[in-house]
Amino acid sequence: MSDAAKPPVEFYFDFSSPYAYLASLRIDEVAKLYERTVIWKPVLLGVVFKTTGNVPLLDQPLKGDYVKRDLARTARLLGADFRLPSSFPFAAVAPSRLFYWLAQDDPARANAYAKAVFSTAFQEAVAVNSPDAAADVAAKLGIDRGAALAACQNPEIKEKLRLANEEAVAAGVCGAPYFIVDGEPFWGNDRMDHLERWLATGGW
Amino acid sequence: MSDAAKPPVEFYFDFSSPYAYLASLRIDEVAKLYERTVIWKPVLLGVVFKTTGNVPLLDQPLKGDYVKRDLARTARLLGADFRLPSSFPFAAVAPSRLFYWLAQDDPARANAYAKAVFSTAFQEAVAVNSPDAAADVAAKLGIDRGAALAACQNPEIKEKLRLANEEAVAAGVCGAPYFIVDGEPFWGNDRMDHLERWLATGGW
Repeated sequence: MSDAAKPPVEFYFDFSSPYAYLASLRIDEVAKLYERTVIWKPVLLGVVFKTTGNVPLLDQPLKGDYVKRDLARTARLLGADFRLPSSFPFAAVAPSRLFYWLAQDDPARANAYAKAVFSTAFQEAVAVNSPDAAADVAAKLGIDRGAALAACQNPEIKEKLRLANEEAVAAGVCGAPYFIVDGEPFWGNDRMDHLERWLATGGW
Repeated sequence: MSDAAKPPVEFYFDFSSPYAYLASLRIDEVAKLYERTVIWKPVLLGVVFKTTGNVPLLDQPLKGDYVKRDLARTARLLGADFRLPSSFPFAAVAPSRLFYWLAQDDPARANAYAKAVFSTAFQEAVAVNSPDAAADVAAKLGIDRGAALAACQNPEIKEKLRLANEEAVAAGVCGAPYFIVDGEPFWGNDRMDHLERWLATGGW
């Protein structure tokens, strides 16, 4: 047996995606069962949708009503706290930048920040849609608020997020959550069963 | 215990939907486990999409490529034969009309016809997109070809399909397959797990 680490699961998401929030509650644990790590990759679905021509789910007639019901039902089934933020969908530019700022020095801290953003948005129902809101979440984790606000305007950090969006489109990401493992893509919280089976079996 | 029959599962689909085809292979069996019957309801998603503003999945950049892969992978997991018809998506007006024509006198025969349309489209890869193609499938089941062709142009039958589309939109159907049972909607082949659990438990 080789001791080489298995390739990680790439987890693409938008902080404003409620299905990505639901997936975020489980992905680390699922991956760990199969000795995989997870690389969290926040992106802006608005950029992706410019390519796919989609509009956000909840803005679509019929589908929006269905999706609200499906989200609540899925959350209950998973035993997950779930509320929609008062402002929804929200532009996740600021928290995404802060994520990549934190990830430069401490990926684990960036992941903790991502989880805090998701719980703020989908448990406390507070949209994390501005530098102030994004810095508030950082401050709760003991991160310097002023430094966080500055990072939101840092050209290097802005560029990191821009590149992450580009890379996601190039990788075929067409929605969130979107997982890639061993070159195989899985789109949707409702494909985590396929993803887990893929990890367990090596594919079919 | 009351002997009253439990309400049926309503199964809305478009004959051109590959995910509906995959669902059609299992829905009768799943419902039967919980003493339910299934009412098959072909509709035209094109009419629904006029309300939701969607475009067919495979016509969308990025998403189309993903969906082709997901369909093949899902079919393999289910052990289902699966090919995309050479002409896809196809307009399912003719087979839908023939379905409602047959259903007038013999719902079981209409269901057998629906299954034959699906296998023609997604196993033999032949688009059932014209009165001739729809009548060919009927003829294989021993149905008079001339009568089938006439039914495709029968104003009463046309009206039945038009009403079925209207009823679907009114019921909130926003894609296919779409199931409603006991007032609860489930959209997608990938919600059959929720549907089955709902039937088993009465909801959560």
